[in-house]
Amino acid sequence: MAIADADLFPHATGEAAKTVAKHTEPQELVFYAGWFCPYAQRGWIALEEKGIPYQYKEINPYHKEKHFLAINPKGLVPAIEYQNKPLYESLIISEFLEDAFPTHEPHLLPADPFARAQARLWIDHISKAVIPAFQRLLQSQEAPKQAAALEELKTALRTLAQNAKGPYFFGEGWSLVDTAIAPWVTRDYIQQEHRGYKREDVSPEWVAYAGKLETRESVVKTRSEKRHYEPIYGRYLRDEAQSEAAKAIRAGRVIP
Amino acid sequence: MAIADADLFPHATGEAAKTVAKHTEPQELVFYAGWFCPYAQRGWIALEEKGIPYQYKEINPYHKEKHFLAINPKGLVPAIEYQNKPLYESLIISEFLEDAFPTHEPHLLPADPFARAQARLWIDHISKAVIPAFQRLLQSQEAPKQAAALEELKTALRTLAQNAKGPYFFGEGWSLVDTAIAPWVTRDYIQQEHRGYKREDVSPEWVAYAGKLETRESVVKTRSEKRHYEPIYGRYLRDEAQSEAAKAIRAGRVIP
Repeated sequence: MAIADADLFPHATGEAAKTVAKHTEPQELVFYAGWFCPYAQRGWIALEEKGIPYQYKEINPYHKEKHFLAINPKGLVPAIEYQNKPLYESLIISEFLEDAFPTHEPHLLPADPFARAQARLWIDHISKAVIPAFQRLLQSQEAPKQAAALEELKTALRTLAQNAKGPYFFGEGWSLVDTAIAPWVTRDYIQQEHRGYKREDVSPEWVAYAGKLETRESVVKTRSEKRHYEPIYGRYLRDEAQSEAAKAIRAGRVIP
Repeated sequence: MAIADADLFPHATGEAAKTVAKHTEPQELVFYAGWFCPYAQRGWIALEEKGIPYQYKEINPYHKEKHFLAINPKGLVPAIEYQNKPLYESLIISEFLEDAFPTHEPHLLPADPFARAQARLWIDHISKAVIPAFQRLLQSQEAPKQAAALEELKTALRTLAQNAKGPYFFGEGWSLVDTAIAPWVTRDYIQQEHRGYKREDVSPEWVAYAGKLETRESVVKTRSEKRHYEPIYGRYLRDEAQSEAAKAIRAGRVIP
């Protein structure tokens, strides 16, 4: 089954392929991504939002190539090399981009210390409540477990949307909270088609916020064609996926 | 059993009690803590390190008092009120203190963006590898599970210590990485007495680093007497504890 995951479609398609084509030249910042990976999409959105020059390199994290393991010992995407120094973890990369390119707008975190802390709290909510519920809903095989995960997911998204000022989380400006949740909005059609999830069942606020997130230029530009995500998510839906996130959820462990 | 947890010793003792006694006057910053809680100790260490004026208020998070739930809807310590605005989560509070009191030294995060990102990566390692292993070792009842958790904990601590410059994580200066791990060093005697853990079995680097952490003034000043931690940890050791962390580990969930 590790082979099934390793056998995934080899490159970005659709809008994401056009974006990759514009970022093939060597740059001081190399962005290592998997086109299908929601965590990688976070870093990609941050780069696109801030207009930071980067070179895109496609990595199949299931293959764990030696050169890539030297950059990220965990073998996970996204990772970057900046001035030959490696860094990984999607949110840490995004905060680094904010710190290292302070003149590039939009600023992903508010300037006010208290508002910054609020941003971190909501990102924490996405990491600890939204994503584990999303992942459990995908991977659960029995109806009662699916129903419980669906409730959890709806509650977590409702709370998030309730606290979003609109159109984006902090109002007119794009932030790290929007960056952190957007890739899961891009992928929620999988839950809609297979797990009885509907945005309307969460709340009108979520319908509005999710609609804004998925039509944001940086989100559209980093999205591949739906038909290529489907075989990947098919493995999650049958609970056969061998990604680190899939294995963690199965074992009752923290997503690494 | 919820009552057993709620019945814990009501206030700080020893060195921590002396520190509490110095922080009873009303201040712009109110620090809500449980004397026994390692997460609360993180925020307390950050306050003490930076010399920020604060008022200490003891909270029993198992009682979930209404006033406290208005400050932190999760009902967990630590939480703060700063200029009447509430905030919670130990690491988010610590980063907030850094952002809101930029002239107070030591700076808990390095100024260089790349070094800041490194700090965040190692804090992530503490959150995702060290603490879950520590918690699983405490709560595991069967010998093979204890042995597996002990190996995990030793590996996670060895990796951390290998990357510490010494005497502290980033060298001479105290940082958020040190703040994030110190409370678990304060409590590792429990694992030593009951779970066959020895610092020497981790690595000489860990022995040295842990020794520096536990003798730091801010750590000593926020530590209660050992005999009062013991009944609390007894409940963990019998896997009867009803804290959110204990329940999460038991259910294979993320520690909230």
